[in-house]
Amino acid sequence: MLKHEKEVIIDFLNKPEMKIIQRADYFNFSLDSVLVSEFLTINRGVNKILDLGTGNGSIPMLLSSRSKARITGVEIQEVSADLARRNIELNKLQEQVGIIHDDLKNWKKHFKTGSQDAVISNPPFFKFNGNTELLNDLDQLTYARHEITANLEDIVSTASGLLKDRGYFALVHRPDRMIEILDLMRKYDISPKRLQFCHSKFGKPAKTILLEGIKYGKEGISILPPLYTHTEDGSYSPEVLEMFK
Amino acid sequence: MLKHEKEVIIDFLNKPEMKIIQRADYFNFSLDSVLVSEFLTINRGVNKILDLGTGNGSIPMLLSSRSKARITGVEIQEVSADLARRNIELNKLQEQVGIIHDDLKNWKKHFKTGSQDAVISNPPFFKFNGNTELLNDLDQLTYARHEITANLEDIVSTASGLLKDRGYFALVHRPDRMIEILDLMRKYDISPKRLQFCHSKFGKPAKTILLEGIKYGKEGISILPPLYTHTEDGSYSPEVLEMFK
Repeated sequence: MLKHEKEVIIDFLNKPEMKIIQRADYFNFSLDSVLVSEFLTINRGVNKILDLGTGNGSIPMLLSSRSKARITGVEIQEVSADLARRNIELNKLQEQVGIIHDDLKNWKKHFKTGSQDAVISNPPFFKFNGNTELLNDLDQLTYARHEITANLEDIVSTASGLLKDRGYFALVHRPDRMIEILDLMRKYDISPKRLQFCHSKFGKPAKTILLEGIKYGKEGISILPPLYTHTEDGSYSPEVLEMFK
Repeated sequence: MLKHEKEVIIDFLNKPEMKIIQRADYFNFSLDSVLVSEFLTINRGVNKILDLGTGNGSIPMLLSSRSKARITGVEIQEVSADLARRNIELNKLQEQVGIIHDDLKNWKKHFKTGSQDAVISNPPFFKFNGNTELLNDLDQLTYARHEITANLEDIVSTASGLLKDRGYFALVHRPDRMIEILDLMRKYDISPKRLQFCHSKFGKPAKTILLEGIKYGKEGISILPPLYTHTEDGSYSPEVLEMFK
């Protein structure tokens, strides 16, 4: 299954018989992917889920534990998309999960408008203010972390186009982008419905936010109890360890 | 000091020598007033503070423990404004605190534009959908809790008019109005800067929010660590007890 000297196969969380291929020099799955995968509303009406910027496929893998829905991951980076495909094969999820190697902004080439019941994303968190002439010199981590190939508005507008009416859109992001996300969701007819702040420890400011909206949903947001990801001694909290199962 | 059979004088929190006159059939000071009074940024540049909808004057009293600033409370209900004046006298705060009995929307009759360093409010939380023909039959608590005499936009636009550039506006409200408040602040040139969620207990959804903005401030909001107001056994948390001192 391995194609490159920097690739390794590791256990996938505490899920028996699941493995994931990662590459040290690429964006690997993180706690944020776990959090957003657990956060997305999945009910009986959710039969098709799309992951925007799937990286090495960790979110589709995580969602496959929660749902029988058809899941598709879209990834612009060729190496990551190839890793994602092999991870799906490695875990025998080909029947449930498909990977598309393309720019998410080309979504109309692959999907009908309103065709998805849910859209999920762990997008790049940081604005890119660098010199675009240097893009060829950037490492792949920079691509995954910065809004170079797609920015927040691209993500939200794409999600909105793909979602059926009353479909769910969940994403993980940084707290300092919260207002921008709330604005963009409403600009693209997604009503913000559930918001959760994730703190690394008790007494620390929020490190990430989880936000879910509903396409053409009613107004009115719920602020969930905060999630503490770690305990005082730095280990994962019981809530997070439960997600790893 | 008492003028009405329903009036009582009680200790004001755990502040030695402070007392407050309350009336059972009027809106009395609550934890929300304590929370927002502690939340407001008070630095050396804050020499004039205005409280919009001061009720019986609890917020000016609380602020007087934190600051030497000149504090003014505006209250539309005559009985409450009279209570507030007597509370200021009772606590010998006349030199520091003034009470104005008027509709806050008439602020230009009393203040110059941009004359305040900080504006604070514990406004009515609920929209009023009732029959306005019945307004004469409403009790005073309904007035204090519902947006009858002033709505959220009145509060925010008044705060903006009163604030100097870089002045602070802090309010306490309900989480389900958060997006509306964020929108209104920006509509009236107040940049949301600090947001804190208050939960009654660990694991419960947020019950109230504290939000502070800066007039013509830079973009960028901080999400503070959540505040838990009570412990598991229902008593006040150590953080809240500290505010009562």
